[in-house]
Amino acid sequence: MKMRIGIDLGGTSATVGIVDNKYKVLCKSSIITSDCRTEKALFDKIEECIYDLMDNSNVTLKDIESIGFGSPGSIDIESGITRRAGNLPLRNTPVVKILKDEFGKDVYLDNDANCAVWGEYNAGVAKEYNNVVMVTLGTGIGGGIIIDGKILHGKDNRAGEVGHVVIDINGKRCSCGRIGCWETLASTRALIERVKLEAEHAPYSTLGNVIADDNGIVDGKTLFTAMKLGCNVAKSIFMDYVKLLGIGILNIIDVLRPDIIVLGGGISKEGNTLLDPVLNYIGETSTLIKTSTLNDDSGIIGAALLYLK
Amino acid sequence: MKMRIGIDLGGTSATVGIVDNKYKVLCKSSIITSDCRTEKALFDKIEECIYDLMDNSNVTLKDIESIGFGSPGSIDIESGITRRAGNLPLRNTPVVKILKDEFGKDVYLDNDANCAVWGEYNAGVAKEYNNVVMVTLGTGIGGGIIIDGKILHGKDNRAGEVGHVVIDINGKRCSCGRIGCWETLASTRALIERVKLEAEHAPYSTLGNVIADDNGIVDGKTLFTAMKLGCNVAKSIFMDYVKLLGIGILNIIDVLRPDIIVLGGGISKEGNTLLDPVLNYIGETSTLIKTSTLNDDSGIIGAALLYLK
Repeated sequence: MKMRIGIDLGGTSATVGIVDNKYKVLCKSSIITSDCRTEKALFDKIEECIYDLMDNSNVTLKDIESIGFGSPGSIDIESGITRRAGNLPLRNTPVVKILKDEFGKDVYLDNDANCAVWGEYNAGVAKEYNNVVMVTLGTGIGGGIIIDGKILHGKDNRAGEVGHVVIDINGKRCSCGRIGCWETLASTRALIERVKLEAEHAPYSTLGNVIADDNGIVDGKTLFTAMKLGCNVAKSIFMDYVKLLGIGILNIIDVLRPDIIVLGGGISKEGNTLLDPVLNYIGETSTLIKTSTLNDDSGIIGAALLYLK
Repeated sequence: MKMRIGIDLGGTSATVGIVDNKYKVLCKSSIITSDCRTEKALFDKIEECIYDLMDNSNVTLKDIESIGFGSPGSIDIESGITRRAGNLPLRNTPVVKILKDEFGKDVYLDNDANCAVWGEYNAGVAKEYNNVVMVTLGTGIGGGIIIDGKILHGKDNRAGEVGHVVIDINGKRCSCGRIGCWETLASTRALIERVKLEAEHAPYSTLGNVIADDNGIVDGKTLFTAMKLGCNVAKSIFMDYVKLLGIGILNIIDVLRPDIIVLGGGISKEGNTLLDPVLNYIGETSTLIKTSTLNDDSGIIGAALLYLK
């Protein structure tokens, strides 16, 4: 059986998976990348992970048809280069050449958000639709757009930066320099910051107790844990968040009116707890809104399937 | 020489033009439509206008290859129907059939904003680009999107409603029901309202004088007239407006990163007086931003060229 390798590189870790010809993840493995100081160290680690993965699943290099690489940051698809990627040691790195030289296979490069939407479009919840937007809720808000069955790259491969749509002209400065970007209000990071702030004001609420019980740690699940315990403070924060999320989703609908918008990222795993109130806020619209079905695998599946582009 | 007819229907008037095979407007004529109470009255008037136009320019029906109709409101392209269009007497009107029955030619229908961008893409400032967004500044802010040389219609033919992207979550209610839509702040109507308000506060400014000299009338040109006279109040209003316009343009860039954004509508005729400060606000970007070169003709040219779709 012919298989393909998908690599989903993030800011602190990378996930590598072997994807079969039914577009399923046969096996996968994650590695920490934040300790890699050089391009060589990073790729040595990725390559070792690929070899280990093949060994552990009795897949030989002969079974591998192609490799796909989902890169964060700024990329040049035509030349197969990642120009830069946040704090990762990538600087005009010839990603495609490095992997091709090592494995002797065709290598495809695209950005991480495009791989995620490409995965959902080919193998996930967006399989039957031609115009798809994927919104990934995380530290920021990432976006990938498919129009007419093709990834919309835009100039400099920078289309889909939906997290930087300004929704609050009097809001907070974003890391990008603009003021009031959607992601300053509706990313998981923004939600966590809001939860921390509100819990400081209401330390004796159920939310405050949940945080205290967790040694002061607040993550993307904290709010949902408190909500499930019936906490009104948590519910109120959540309803504000749903509105901010909904505003940005409606903005995408107004511009693109896609067939479907797929919500991804850790928080999307809350499923209907997140989705139902969002749908309720948005009201009637011809654009479907669903949470990812591939979850963390959309990136590796999408990368592995880049050959279909 | 083969020619085509383009019809650009608006809320209060319609413009009909004959477009030659070099995509130039041979002749055109405008009619008032706001007094048409029925579908029949409206089409009688449009058809009469077409016959008059042909008579006056020695064009016979034999010279006409096809007819294109740019409709406001909600349309169904596949069935050639305008479902409704604001206050116009159109209600599930079979536009294509009506015109085909009358003239015996192929008739093409699309919405007005799509015709405008299609005109600029085929015959105007966006001729050499494949990914184009046209932003028409008027009573609202209209939008038309071309991706990969094709009009992006979206679900229900409603893609491109860029005027309803929310940029101010704490702003004013828009006619669409949402709060803080771009067009509540950056349409020509919003600008005129702002000019009126500020002039009330500063009646002895140059701006106030310009308005008084014009019998209290404020239109899209008032601000520019006062600016040219050196009015600081006008300049300050204008710089605020430029920022609000720029924010929405940057939002489009973040989502689509098109090759070019074309600004249309009456105010875009101010040319570099408008464009230079907008470009300055936006800063470096790989997306070109230009004002329309076809101006009022983009709609009729685009409608006439719908056969190229």
